[in-house]
Amino acid sequence: MNHNQLFDWRRRSILAVFFVLVRCVSAADLGDLTPVSDWNAVAKGVWRAEIGNLSHEIRYSDLAAAPPKIEALNELSDAAFPFSKDAVSYLVGRDHKVLVRIPTAEDETLYGFGLQLDGIKKSRKVMTLNVDHWSKGGGRTHAPVPFYISSKGYGVFFNTARFLKIYNQVGNRKDSLRNPAEVDRNPPPDEKQAGPWLAQPPGDSVEAQVNGEGMELVVFSGQSLLEVVQRYNLFSGGGALPPLWGLGFWHRVHAKFNADQVREELAEFEQRDFPIDVVGLEPGWMTKSYPCTFEWQKKRFPDPAGFAKELLDDGVRLNLWENPFISKHSRLYESMYPLSGSHLVWLGLVPDYTMPEARKLLTDQHHKDHIGIGISGYKIDEVDGYDFWLWPDHATFPSGISGEAMRQSYGLLMQNMLYTDLFKQRNVRTYSLVRAANGAASGYPFVIYSDAYSHKEYLTGISTSSLCGILWTPEARSARSDREWLNRMQTVCFSAMAQLNAWSSGKKPWSYDGVTDAVREVIQLRMRLLPYLYSAFAEYQQQGVPPIRAMILEDGFSAEQDEIIEGTLDSETNPYAMGKRIEKTDQYMFGRSILVAPFYEAQAIEREVQLPAGNWYDFYTGQWVGNGETITVTAAGLGDRIPLFVKDGAVIPMLSRSVNQADKAIGHPLEVRWYGKRAGFFDLYEDDGQSFDYERQVFRWRRLSVESVKAQAVRLEESIVSGTGQAMFGPVGRFSVMTE
Amino acid sequence: MNHNQLFDWRRRSILAVFFVLVRCVSAADLGDLTPVSDWNAVAKGVWRAEIGNLSHEIRYSDLAAAPPKIEALNELSDAAFPFSKDAVSYLVGRDHKVLVRIPTAEDETLYGFGLQLDGIKKSRKVMTLNVDHWSKGGGRTHAPVPFYISSKGYGVFFNTARFLKIYNQVGNRKDSLRNPAEVDRNPPPDEKQAGPWLAQPPGDSVEAQVNGEGMELVVFSGQSLLEVVQRYNLFSGGGALPPLWGLGFWHRVHAKFNADQVREELAEFEQRDFPIDVVGLEPGWMTKSYPCTFEWQKKRFPDPAGFAKELLDDGVRLNLWENPFISKHSRLYESMYPLSGSHLVWLGLVPDYTMPEARKLLTDQHHKDHIGIGISGYKIDEVDGYDFWLWPDHATFPSGISGEAMRQSYGLLMQNMLYTDLFKQRNVRTYSLVRAANGAASGYPFVIYSDAYSHKEYLTGISTSSLCGILWTPEARSARSDREWLNRMQTVCFSAMAQLNAWSSGKKPWSYDGVTDAVREVIQLRMRLLPYLYSAFAEYQQQGVPPIRAMILEDGFSAEQDEIIEGTLDSETNPYAMGKRIEKTDQYMFGRSILVAPFYEAQAIEREVQLPAGNWYDFYTGQWVGNGETITVTAAGLGDRIPLFVKDGAVIPMLSRSVNQADKAIGHPLEVRWYGKRAGFFDLYEDDGQSFDYERQVFRWRRLSVESVKAQAVRLEESIVSGTGQAMFGPVGRFSVMTE
Repeated sequence: MNHNQLFDWRRRSILAVFFVLVRCVSAADLGDLTPVSDWNAVAKGVWRAEIGNLSHEIRYSDLAAAPPKIEALNELSDAAFPFSKDAVSYLVGRDHKVLVRIPTAEDETLYGFGLQLDGIKKSRKVMTLNVDHWSKGGGRTHAPVPFYISSKGYGVFFNTARFLKIYNQVGNRKDSLRNPAEVDRNPPPDEKQAGPWLAQPPGDSVEAQVNGEGMELVVFSGQSLLEVVQRYNLFSGGGALPPLWGLGFWHRVHAKFNADQVREELAEFEQRDFPIDVVGLEPGWMTKSYPCTFEWQKKRFPDPAGFAKELLDDGVRLNLWENPFISKHSRLYESMYPLSGSHLVWLGLVPDYTMPEARKLLTDQHHKDHIGIGISGYKIDEVDGYDFWLWPDHATFPSGISGEAMRQSYGLLMQNMLYTDLFKQRNVRTYSLVRAANGAASGYPFVIYSDAYSHKEYLTGISTSSLCGILWTPEARSARSDREWLNRMQTVCFSAMAQLNAWSSGKKPWSYDGVTDAVREVIQLRMRLLPYLYSAFAEYQQQGVPPIRAMILEDGFSAEQDEIIEGTLDSETNPYAMGKRIEKTDQYMFGRSILVAPFYEAQAIEREVQLPAGNWYDFYTGQWVGNGETITVTAAGLGDRIPLFVKDGAVIPMLSRSVNQADKAIGHPLEVRWYGKRAGFFDLYEDDGQSFDYERQVFRWRRLSVESVKAQAVRLEESIVSGTGQAMFGPVGRFSVMTE
Repeated sequence: MNHNQLFDWRRRSILAVFFVLVRCVSAADLGDLTPVSDWNAVAKGVWRAEIGNLSHEIRYSDLAAAPPKIEALNELSDAAFPFSKDAVSYLVGRDHKVLVRIPTAEDETLYGFGLQLDGIKKSRKVMTLNVDHWSKGGGRTHAPVPFYISSKGYGVFFNTARFLKIYNQVGNRKDSLRNPAEVDRNPPPDEKQAGPWLAQPPGDSVEAQVNGEGMELVVFSGQSLLEVVQRYNLFSGGGALPPLWGLGFWHRVHAKFNADQVREELAEFEQRDFPIDVVGLEPGWMTKSYPCTFEWQKKRFPDPAGFAKELLDDGVRLNLWENPFISKHSRLYESMYPLSGSHLVWLGLVPDYTMPEARKLLTDQHHKDHIGIGISGYKIDEVDGYDFWLWPDHATFPSGISGEAMRQSYGLLMQNMLYTDLFKQRNVRTYSLVRAANGAASGYPFVIYSDAYSHKEYLTGISTSSLCGILWTPEARSARSDREWLNRMQTVCFSAMAQLNAWSSGKKPWSYDGVTDAVREVIQLRMRLLPYLYSAFAEYQQQGVPPIRAMILEDGFSAEQDEIIEGTLDSETNPYAMGKRIEKTDQYMFGRSILVAPFYEAQAIEREVQLPAGNWYDFYTGQWVGNGETITVTAAGLGDRIPLFVKDGAVIPMLSRSVNQADKAIGHPLEVRWYGKRAGFFDLYEDDGQSFDYERQVFRWRRLSVESVKAQAVRLEESIVSGTGQAMFGPVGRFSVMTE
């Protein structure tokens, strides 16, 4: 072929490509977005809009534990639609893609997108939300909830079970009216640079795309960020209310423990005076695991029913590890085969739990072999990924659900099935664990955990999970030092689930000699706080207030105190001179009034605490510590307590002394503490602690009011403000005025 | 809402989802794959198959520099289709997805997938191939070429410009006939585990998916891995042949240098006796950069034409940095506006270069302002990503090409346009740089570089790039020590482009005092090897043999000597007890006969070299070093030379002494070296070194044969074996028998 022939060939080839392409050009392909005009109010402050064709899409809200709580939504304050009528726009592409654009202001900060372990602010980031085992930041996490809240007081939920690629204030449309000015990065010596050249010029919107035919958007408004989150949770059916025992202490024993070894461990808890409510059995309880049979390994547990009853008689419940992937040795295998996906996970079947037949097979077996003998809940492992062990994105399932939608919703589906078809059906609450969740999950009493293990990241998870209806446990597994052990046990006792997970390490709460007493003390403190914490969960259930919360949801907290590190040009390590931001995500709110600032890692001896505006007091002593400032706290001694600070006017109900099982809190007398100078009250929630009767209004709110009637004279009053239930906790045995 | 209502609501909701889904169930959704039956032979050992609807897809091969070299393909050895007729299968999904499944054997290893900096083996990995700036391994790299080769002697090319999610021997279909047996991870004490429990049970195939309506597959066969790669390159139009000067020494000056500073730098090269062929100007040569104008900054370069001529008169060429994103200050801006995509990059327009009008606008300007005054080529920066600065995946372009397809092919499009519409049109070769490429790129004389800077990774890049038609320069920019500088300069002198890039560091070859002479020596060695290296590129152009190659392409090399580190269970750091593999990718072949084993990082003083079977000799001394074994080499002195080893029978033509510009090699007398004991020959390629006349057969191959006529008597003979061109290099002035 000579030169001209080659040239012609090339020319023809390019033109051929071009002509194929131009045939497909339409107005929509030219970047013309269409305003979303059809916003339907769900309740006060909640609007949904359907974009494109949703008939093949799964909405996370269809998998929620309950329908939207319309009444509770309408009780929140008035809030207008946060955008102008035509501000949100979309494009349904030729390419089986749906794009949504949501404008943002120049000074707007975005938070959320699920359980993130690297930080709470997600402005100026690109993420692909994809359920995964990593949680190293970005879009791959156990719970990549496609919901964000904005510093401008609204939230947006992409209510579609797809991988979502999202550009948060990243990217500049050429027709934008708010693009920054160009800055020459290399001006000649006599020209002054107009300003810093930015590797990432700020964008004016959120743009998000799914591969699909449609997408549902839900927008939430509120007078505060907390109200926006409340509305998201109420839209999702309200928050989860665990049984009271779920808030006690959990201990998962080594994977290969048998019944006698569990008995010995429990005896040692008693002998050492350590509380325990739940024993978690890890994979060895089953005949085969990875993949699973769900059948008892009789060589380890010869009499499961007797064993479960024996523990229950002592107030201790059993929780069973499982992953959903079904072994050939399982009695379910043959019936489940046609109801499972094209691919295996660890050589086990992947049941399609969108199918009632598949649900029935599993739940019948679970009813009979587990719940029927008193099993209290599950730990659903490995429903997240890695890509290399989970089913591939292209896997097919008999119901027709795509591998992608299944990946995004499998954790939710498992929660939905177990919660509804097992526990709710029996009118027995559960508190369980699961390693993946997604949108609209707040109603499920399942707590997320992770194989990650940085204490700092675990703290960040406490904050980020609270923005999206997710519960998270920074479980303790092991430590390299007494101090680390104590610090981790302190954090976990101030989380949604106080769990020691010894499946591999074999650790016990007292495994680190130097801190045994301090560890016992913090577990006992959690037990004493059960009335306070249980009420926080009831507020979650009824009003959507996360029981454990990021500081940005707290009035008077300034979210703008990040440490900013300027970038320095270096062709070997930083060719675009990019800077970085270090966020303050190491403190959080626990219940209505307690600010928790754990010691951890490099901050194990001394750390800073950023107090919101208002007067704050030391939890232990009642002493004033500051108002809106950043203070430093130190742990001089090895056994020093976890720093806890309380708001002015806070009323905190506690058990008058610790108990070793949560059930013993029922009827137990209370100590009520009052901090600061202002009048205040606490609404104490009471119900039977274990059934769903609260859905029939069988509960009550008992108000503990403290009034400073005159100087030096303080009075505590009790009243029932709502509900028809009976008392749960005992009378107030002590009233402590903490701040003199 | 009471309990029963809630339950019913949930049930209805799940069933609603279910019924929507079941409506869509079809046989295809149940995982039934269809065999690919329609394989069309392109030439001997090459078959293509079209799957689904390709009318909206861009094939990389449509953007290749030249059509398949059918004659050269047919000259390779016979090779059968590597699979049984119905072994490859596909599924065109309801969901705008196309899946392809290619079976693999149990003992099969896969290599390739483009320029990878983390290793050459890609078995048992999941990757999403997506052009990106990272190159941290996995699917995101500057050149994520969707082509792999198999240890079983074949290759597969996914010839479609889409993100490709690929599961390499990962995942187990439930209907597979070759799934491993289940292993209980937690057997009771009296049962022995059947074998190790694997976090990743081996899969039996490659499964790859795109979001699209169709995909083209191309399969290559061969008698060796090298032949498979040759066929891929020949299918892509053959390899690139740089001008001779392109193989000399390159020096990119600081971004803010002006003409006088360049002159001073060149004077110092001359004064210090350092070769130099090309000066690279970085962004400051333009009036505005990031985004770009492509117009000369007259305050730095008042007379561009005069300056370029002045350098050319000294045999030095100019190469211009640019990225394709167009500034408002560019004269092209207004005309390019409607021909550009919906989004900006660094606030610059992103032209749609699938459109002839857009191509013409840019190339007219480049002809006039650059090529017309003698500019030799470009460095096309930042056509790869990060996601957060490039156009988003959902960007739209006026031709109708999707943002995704544009992302995958922009680097190719730039090469296509500049190579064809600028240089080829003028019958002048270029050697240029680009930061992104993809499939079917072997015909483009563009070299990839990266902001990454690990010497180890750069060495790995030399190997991986050779498997997929990519050229790669491990450019030197800076170093923390004299020794590091020398080692990097040694590596870069044995790469496709010997470049020092001082755009930010301002370094010069002599910036590290202790090694100045050793650096000069290795650059001079590269210059002396120009006849040898130029011939290697001619073999690349005509026969598809990569000039610089991974060891696995070398006869007699064992690829199975990786270091395997067993995983240890640790619930905090390694809960699935996963192991890892450390590959030997730190040595490679340079031209026909030289094995290069650079010193680097921790291997700077002492390193191992794994010799292929056959006798090998030290390049410098001719001494025998081993046969098929692993030897250790040491760098006792700071200035020690880069270890080079030569095959038995190798004949190596060099210039009799070094030259400071490649042009001076023309007509220069040769020294021919012979190593070992066996007869051998070298085919020396000769043409004009700068035009495309070779496409009209204006070249010649001159054979240098060494015969050992009898003991101790050796003869060198010359003959012209093919071609019609004239001599390029001078006569053989010296024949050196290196092994006595």
